[in-house]
Amino acid sequence: MSAPTPYTATAEEAYLDRLLAARLLLPTNLPGIYARGSAFTQLMEGLERAITRYGRTESTQILRCPPVLPRSIVEKCGYFQSFPNLLGCMCCFTGGTTEHEALLSAVDSGADLLPHLELSDVVLAPAACYYVYPYLTGTLPQAGKTTDIENWCYRHEPSLNPMRMRAFRMREFVHAGTPEQALGFRDSWIERAQAFLARLGLSATVAPADDPFFGAGERLMAAQTLKFELLIPIVSDTRPTAVMSSNYHKDHFGHLFDIRTPDGAAAHTTCIGFGMERIVLALLAQHGLQLSKWPTALREHLGLA
Amino acid sequence: MSAPTPYTATAEEAYLDRLLAARLLLPTNLPGIYARGSAFTQLMEGLERAITRYGRTESTQILRCPPVLPRSIVEKCGYFQSFPNLLGCMCCFTGGTTEHEALLSAVDSGADLLPHLELSDVVLAPAACYYVYPYLTGTLPQAGKTTDIENWCYRHEPSLNPMRMRAFRMREFVHAGTPEQALGFRDSWIERAQAFLARLGLSATVAPADDPFFGAGERLMAAQTLKFELLIPIVSDTRPTAVMSSNYHKDHFGHLFDIRTPDGAAAHTTCIGFGMERIVLALLAQHGLQLSKWPTALREHLGLA
Repeated sequence: MSAPTPYTATAEEAYLDRLLAARLLLPTNLPGIYARGSAFTQLMEGLERAITRYGRTESTQILRCPPVLPRSIVEKCGYFQSFPNLLGCMCCFTGGTTEHEALLSAVDSGADLLPHLELSDVVLAPAACYYVYPYLTGTLPQAGKTTDIENWCYRHEPSLNPMRMRAFRMREFVHAGTPEQALGFRDSWIERAQAFLARLGLSATVAPADDPFFGAGERLMAAQTLKFELLIPIVSDTRPTAVMSSNYHKDHFGHLFDIRTPDGAAAHTTCIGFGMERIVLALLAQHGLQLSKWPTALREHLGLA
Repeated sequence: MSAPTPYTATAEEAYLDRLLAARLLLPTNLPGIYARGSAFTQLMEGLERAITRYGRTESTQILRCPPVLPRSIVEKCGYFQSFPNLLGCMCCFTGGTTEHEALLSAVDSGADLLPHLELSDVVLAPAACYYVYPYLTGTLPQAGKTTDIENWCYRHEPSLNPMRMRAFRMREFVHAGTPEQALGFRDSWIERAQAFLARLGLSATVAPADDPFFGAGERLMAAQTLKFELLIPIVSDTRPTAVMSSNYHKDHFGHLFDIRTPDGAAAHTTCIGFGMERIVLALLAQHGLQLSKWPTALREHLGLA
C-alpha cells in the first residue's frame, strides 16, 4: 500500500497568481480574501443575470439578505456541531471610556483584543439558504414554494487556492414541498444544471458528495443529507472543483422550522446552489483571462459589453 | 432654556411596520437585521444601474469586495480610536475534539461562547472605501484616479429605525489626486448628487456634518475630515435622513497608504457615498409602497418591469 500523495496546491496557486497578475482579483494581505476587479465583476453580474433568466419563474420568491445572520439560526441548525471550525462569529466592543483606553492599549501593543470584546448576536452566513427556512414556517401552498436567494458567505478556511475563498457569493434556489416535489425539484435541477453550465462552455460531471463534517458530527449528519456536486477540473483533473451542488435535506428543516405541506406533514426541502466565484473561475480557465477573446455567443449570453 | 426633546422613534418604527407588512423587508428576531423581499430587491438593482449610468466613466476603476476586511486596515485607519463601538470583529473556533465538546456544552447551556473562540484577522467592513486606499499606494496618474466600489457594511447599532440598519449596502465613488482635483470632485458631486436624487423625485438639502466619534476621538479626527450630507425628511421633518454623503479626507489616507500625485506629494482623497437602502426607503416614502403605482418615467428610469 503506497502512502497517500501529499496535497500540493501548485496548480491552484499558479492560477491565483495569473488571476492577480491580470487584476481579475486583487490581493489583500490575507489568504482567501480578495477584491474583485472590473472584468471579474462584469462576469459575476453577467452570471447573475443568466441564472435569473434560467432559474426564476413567476412564483419564485426573491430574497436578498445581509452577510450576517442571527446566531440563533445557526445554533438551531446545529452548525456548531457540524462545522464549528468554519463559522465566523461576530464580537463587539461595548465598554465606556475607561475600557476604550484599555482596548486601544491592546491595539497598540498587538495584544489579544478578545478580552476587551463581547460576543454579539450575529454570525457570518456560512451558506445562503439559512436565511430562507425561518420565512417558510407555516403551511406551504399546494405546489410547494421556491425561493431565489443570493448571499455573501464566509467560511474560515484560509487558503491560497482561489477555488476556496473564505468570502464568496452563493446563489441558491431552495424548494420546500412534499417529498415528491422536493425530489422532483432536485432531480430536474441536476440535469438542468449540466445544461446551464454547458451553455457557458463548461463540461461538468455529477457526483455524490459528503460535506467535511467536524469530528464526531460526521456520522450523525451525513445520514440526514443527500448531496450531489457538479464537478469541473478547473486546474487539475485529479482535484476537480464543485461549482454547483444540490442538497436534499429530507424533513430536517421542515421539522426544525415547522414548515408544513397542506396535509400537515413536515415539508421536505432541497436546494441547488451556484458557487458564483467558482463558476467564474471555471469560465476564465476554460475561455482564457481576456474576455475580449471569448466566443461572441458566450459574450452575448453573459451581456459582456 | 428648555430641556431637549427626548428622541422617540415612533414615526420611524411605524414606517418599519409598514415596510414589514408590505414584505418589502422581512424581519429577523434581531433589530436592524432584515431580509429584502422581491420589490425591495428590484429597487436596489434599479438604483445600482442608475448610479452606474450616472457616475461611472471610461477611466473609473471598478472594485467589488467581500463584506469582511483585514483587521489590519481598520487598525491602521484608526477605526478602533474613532468608532470602536460600531465595529464588528470576527472570531472563530480553532480547537480540536476536546475543545469542541466544551464549546457545544456552552452552546447547549446558553453560556458565553467567547472563551471558546479566538479573534480572527478580519472585521466586518464599516464603510466601503476602506477597501480602496490600499490599492492606490504608489503614484497616481496625472488626472488622479476614481474608483467605483459597493459593499455590504456593518455597524453595530441595533435599532428599530429602518433608516439605521446594522447591515446595509454602500456605493461609493472615491477620488484620489491633487487637492484641487479632490476638491473639484467633491464640489461637482455635491451638485450632481442633488440632481441625481431630483431625477428620482427626491428633494434633498445639503448640510455640513460631523461623524459621531466615540469619546475623546472626536476633536482629533473632526479636524481631519470635512463632511457634507444630503438630507431627506423620510418620515420626519425634524429628523431628516442622510441618504448620501461626501467626505474630504485631505491627505489623511494619502499619507497612511503612501498614495502620491505625480509631483511626489501625498494625494488628497474624497468620496461620495450612496446609502443604498436609505435612498430606496426615501423612494418608498415619497412614491408609496406599491411600485406599480409609481410614475411611469421613474419606473422606466429604474428599469422596473
